[in-house]
Amino acid sequence: MRIGFEEAADFLNGCTDVLIITHASPDGDTLGCGFGLCRALRQCGKKADVVCADPIPPRYDFLKEWYAPQGFEPKQIIAVDIADTKLMGKLSDYGDKVDLCVDHHITNTGYAKRLLLGEKSAAACEVVYTLLKTAGMPIDETAAMCLYTGIATDTGCFKFESVTPETHMIAAELYRYEFPLPAAKLNRRLFDIKSQSRVKAEGIIIKNTELLCDGKCAMTSVTLDEERESGISADDFDGIASLPMQFEGVEIAVTVREKDPGRFKISIRTGTDANASRICSSFGGGGHIRAAGCTITGRLDDVKAQLLKACAEELHNVGY
Amino acid sequence: MRIGFEEAADFLNGCTDVLIITHASPDGDTLGCGFGLCRALRQCGKKADVVCADPIPPRYDFLKEWYAPQGFEPKQIIAVDIADTKLMGKLSDYGDKVDLCVDHHITNTGYAKRLLLGEKSAAACEVVYTLLKTAGMPIDETAAMCLYTGIATDTGCFKFESVTPETHMIAAELYRYEFPLPAAKLNRRLFDIKSQSRVKAEGIIIKNTELLCDGKCAMTSVTLDEERESGISADDFDGIASLPMQFEGVEIAVTVREKDPGRFKISIRTGTDANASRICSSFGGGGHIRAAGCTITGRLDDVKAQLLKACAEELHNVGY
Repeated sequence: MRIGFEEAADFLNGCTDVLIITHASPDGDTLGCGFGLCRALRQCGKKADVVCADPIPPRYDFLKEWYAPQGFEPKQIIAVDIADTKLMGKLSDYGDKVDLCVDHHITNTGYAKRLLLGEKSAAACEVVYTLLKTAGMPIDETAAMCLYTGIATDTGCFKFESVTPETHMIAAELYRYEFPLPAAKLNRRLFDIKSQSRVKAEGIIIKNTELLCDGKCAMTSVTLDEERESGISADDFDGIASLPMQFEGVEIAVTVREKDPGRFKISIRTGTDANASRICSSFGGGGHIRAAGCTITGRLDDVKAQLLKACAEELHNVGY
Repeated sequence: MRIGFEEAADFLNGCTDVLIITHASPDGDTLGCGFGLCRALRQCGKKADVVCADPIPPRYDFLKEWYAPQGFEPKQIIAVDIADTKLMGKLSDYGDKVDLCVDHHITNTGYAKRLLLGEKSAAACEVVYTLLKTAGMPIDETAAMCLYTGIATDTGCFKFESVTPETHMIAAELYRYEFPLPAAKLNRRLFDIKSQSRVKAEGIIIKNTELLCDGKCAMTSVTLDEERESGISADDFDGIASLPMQFEGVEIAVTVREKDPGRFKISIRTGTDANASRICSSFGGGGHIRAAGCTITGRLDDVKAQLLKACAEELHNVGY
């Protein structure tokens, strides 16, 4: 059942022993929600723990330096930034036991007993912030840093289409706190610093980029051999699909990664008009209008040729 | 004479024929101030033109799509984001005729008859915004886009140490307007899109980066031969000095660019503790604590060895 901030705040104030579930393959937003909410609940004298199906990436360690699990029998279960129980990974057994879900995905399946959905919020952390304010719960420096992290990471540091006046307004409020990690250092860690192997991976992606369709389509690829030779790991390619979008004039960016011999994972990103999901669905995949994916088997050259044809058609369809 | 917002607003309201001077080698902040202020003044029925000693880079063309010079005998001269008359370039003859300077540089020399200085503002556009609000002047979609551009570019899209709650608060206010260029497209143009030759230049910088001093110092170089061979231009290296900072663990980034045979321009950036200005001053240069520069002549190897020694000393000095 969908509820509003007042009702969610009443529920939160009535909580006593809360298990907070974050989504698998955790990102800054789900972790920011999880640890920010946990921090606020504990400061109210409540018991609260955060769980995740997958290990937390070391780059987010700063969110939980203060945190140790309390280990108790939960009386309430809250899911944060989780649109679908499948996204809980190996914790999906909790799926039908969630008392409150706090989310910002319009695609939320409504699996929880109560759903607080901020479908216009750029980050679930915006929704958690307003919830805590409504509940009159304390937000301290650490909680503020967690919530800021979620907002900053989910918006590419205030760059994405999803940013609203509210996003900046909440960031302004959070910036009034002195974060345990100075804000500039935090931003640098979140957005600028890369491992040496990541920089190498980006180099391969850029070197292999071909500009096609009069420069409107950028296509790049990485083979298993290239991955092996350069000593970079699969992790280094995380989120790399937006890199070919940086070339001036590109409307469709296609990244072809060999996952197994002859089996390629395709990631497509689009600028302002082309529909990534439409291109990928013609190969049995799908996703969003600006970001989608599919899998194709075959020879790399053939795979690229098929993708090029589909991209050229999409560009034509949207009047390029 | 330093004045406050009220007095500056009174002066602005009394203006009739305003020439607005932006600084040479113009950036997003000075241009955002210039065109944002010009737009607001014109909407009040005043005459206003913007001048700059140097051509406006094409990436900022969107700021002035609405603009045509009116060409009149100026009765008031306003300088924006200009700390020193030297920064006016070939317009520095106006230096002692400036009626109002709106700036955010603590180093402002006080050359203007009236100085409105927001020394805690991350961008001069923040000061212009508050000035326009104080003066009760209209800010329309176009002016809002100009002011947002200055704030976003001067803060690396809200990433730098200079960002304050006020920065996000003003961004929130500006985001309420519907910019002529959609905000996401604007952000992409300002921060993500690069020319093909720029991407090439970045590739050279990364390929040539050596990690020294246990990975705390990243040193990179570009020779005249490399510039010639790759067909990239000097412009492509603009602002490239922060690139070697992206390697995890780097505290000092040194970029060595051959300007003439055997004469090297050095740019140094530092993370959180080392002092770039101190390193550069030992070579007769200077700058700020996080960004400084100098020029050294000699053989590339020798130049690098000298720089390495100076960086190692600085790292030692600050306890690394």
